[in-house]
Amino acid sequence: MTDPELKIVLPFWADSFLVEYQNRSFVSDKDKMMLAIELSRLNTEYGTGGPFGAAMFNHSTGKLISIGINLVTSTKSSVAHAEMAAIISAQNILNTYDLSTINGGCELASSTEPCIMCMGAVLWAGITRLLCGANDADARGAGFDEGPKPQNWVQEFEKRGIKVKTGLLREDAAKVLSEYKNNNGIIYNPKR
Amino acid sequence: MTDPELKIVLPFWADSFLVEYQNRSFVSDKDKMMLAIELSRLNTEYGTGGPFGAAMFNHSTGKLISIGINLVTSTKSSVAHAEMAAIISAQNILNTYDLSTINGGCELASSTEPCIMCMGAVLWAGITRLLCGANDADARGAGFDEGPKPQNWVQEFEKRGIKVKTGLLREDAAKVLSEYKNNNGIIYNPKR
Repeated sequence: MTDPELKIVLPFWADSFLVEYQNRSFVSDKDKMMLAIELSRLNTEYGTGGPFGAAMFNHSTGKLISIGINLVTSTKSSVAHAEMAAIISAQNILNTYDLSTINGGCELASSTEPCIMCMGAVLWAGITRLLCGANDADARGAGFDEGPKPQNWVQEFEKRGIKVKTGLLREDAAKVLSEYKNNNGIIYNPKR
Repeated sequence: MTDPELKIVLPFWADSFLVEYQNRSFVSDKDKMMLAIELSRLNTEYGTGGPFGAAMFNHSTGKLISIGINLVTSTKSSVAHAEMAAIISAQNILNTYDLSTINGGCELASSTEPCIMCMGAVLWAGITRLLCGANDADARGAGFDEGPKPQNWVQEFEKRGIKVKTGLLREDAAKVLSEYKNNNGIIYNPKR
């Protein structure tokens, strides 16, 4: 048995995306969400994964720290959701398991409200702010199981010091989900 | 930005552990749980991580597929929980994001009921059976936040075709948690 490894190889188009946006400052929540939605859109357009994108920013400077896209099928790992990739990448880059220790704090923009796994990952990563685009119903409408998320999850986040903003550019984000469904994109939930 | 990577380097003692147990068949649920608890105990005794262990088995043959231990501090990744490591490893080894496609099915033994992140990871991995040792209150008693898990999570799992058995060797599993607490083990929840 070799050491377990989740290597999330970003697709070819991510290189030029990063050249364009890395180290740029994103001021408004809307700008941050636009980037996450653009990632979800490119991932489906290029056929490189599921219709989900995420991006991590320094809350104080607005600088882009890391990106994440859904790569479950290409990495052959059910763990490789967009938020997980963005968190793993940010913690790689900043060399810490607790992003709350980073000056200015870290915030995550996710094109869709996190599933129950990513919800937990956000709680443990030390993120101080979460921005969400499409909602749970939009994701379920496209065929994805989001898991038994608690109804009061936003309060549970706030109780732990994590601010949450939902419904940011929801229509734009949900459009990527419905287009993925209409184009018969792979629903990679496990077979039951 | 390089490709994000979660490389879970298993500690030195895992080698001899695997030499001893790999490819062995574990027949009873109790034997499987004993292995997961032994992993949690060794991880704390050697000071290589948090007091949590997990092991993946083929349900039909009882063969050990992969192991996981908590390595949040050494990998500097808040994602590196025991269950995540065992899932990532099993999917590496079996070359699939959906363990439900494996002949005989896959079952995970976890020394403690999964936190909300690992709960989601178990749901998406294609596991057909989950065995748990210590419970939520035991983990919280040792200082770990388990997240806003739904109270009816066992029913939610069964609804998705995943059988759950809780409280297996609970006292042995909980003892590892309380000893970790008594020895002032690191509680790696993010600073709030």
